[in-house]
Amino acid sequence: MEIQILRLGHRLPRDERISTHVALVARTFGASGIVYTGQHDSGLEDSVKRICANWGGKTGNEEKEGYGITYEKNYSKPIKKAKEDGFTIVHLTMYGMPLLEKIGEIKKMTNDAGRNGKLLVVIGSEHVPGEVYQLADFNVAVTNQPHSEVAALAITLNELNNGEMLKRDADVKFKGKIRVKPNEKGKSFY
Amino acid sequence: MEIQILRLGHRLPRDERISTHVALVARTFGASGIVYTGQHDSGLEDSVKRICANWGGKTGNEEKEGYGITYEKNYSKPIKKAKEDGFTIVHLTMYGMPLLEKIGEIKKMTNDAGRNGKLLVVIGSEHVPGEVYQLADFNVAVTNQPHSEVAALAITLNELNNGEMLKRDADVKFKGKIRVKPNEKGKSFY
Repeated sequence: MEIQILRLGHRLPRDERISTHVALVARTFGASGIVYTGQHDSGLEDSVKRICANWGGKTGNEEKEGYGITYEKNYSKPIKKAKEDGFTIVHLTMYGMPLLEKIGEIKKMTNDAGRNGKLLVVIGSEHVPGEVYQLADFNVAVTNQPHSEVAALAITLNELNNGEMLKRDADVKFKGKIRVKPNEKGKSFY
Repeated sequence: MEIQILRLGHRLPRDERISTHVALVARTFGASGIVYTGQHDSGLEDSVKRICANWGGKTGNEEKEGYGITYEKNYSKPIKKAKEDGFTIVHLTMYGMPLLEKIGEIKKMTNDAGRNGKLLVVIGSEHVPGEVYQLADFNVAVTNQPHSEVAALAITLNELNNGEMLKRDADVKFKGKIRVKPNEKGKSFY
């Protein structure tokens, strides 16, 4: 399963750090890349590239260069393009269906023989256009409470990859220059 | 098990939204309250109180008023106080031991007969003083990769409460004025 992320409606300076967290969570929990819409932000792109330069960004997919971030002006174009390409579209929203009730169906659709094994996870910011709810194959909630798209994305990706990235040494695959050695106290590196 | 959160080193305006997300994630995933240190921020406190006013903040513990946020100037005082009171101290850090390797021990210590069934989860911001690593009973990592304290907190609390808050109707316990009805498309409320 290959997972891509679409972050909608990035606003400056308001979402500067939240979108950075979103992009880093996506990378850490196994997404192959993120597209964002809203305001263009080279600071956001540089932050993500800097992390990848030191910590690696390989996706385990040898055809790929590594984890990437790109900007797209139009919010619906990347969703429509992904649908045409056979992606399963999952929109995270606090108004959606409980994640755990849908995760089986999401995996089943993504891995269906007639599709391409790819999944697009869409996350909004303040206001998400109604069209996104219609375009999505699944509108899914990580609790129906107001909290954080960063948290919702982490929980969703962790469920999609069955907790794989929480395992010791899972980050070998990033092939980073820097890799932390787990410590009981303090800090050390491999 | 009662869980409290300590957010260290809040900075304005940099951490304004990240700390709000931290506080809302803590509430949603079952913490009974959050203390923050660093710069005092009445905007942060107001945001959290506004959410609780509409969405509820009951903790399921009848002695309590509901989810709360408070400021403390000194970063080590609340940790030392919690230790004296028999709390288990868990510090989330990307340099720590894999969460899943420690979660059993954390629950065991917290529920030990000689202790009080309470747990303090400490999360830092940019720089965390070395003393915090020493004071903690557990330094725990949600992956050893740089990503987000919001995500690390959500994953940790979700593991601590065995995914309980991801279940449909788990949020009845908040007794909020507003409660979302899960939707396949769009938005509706109870």
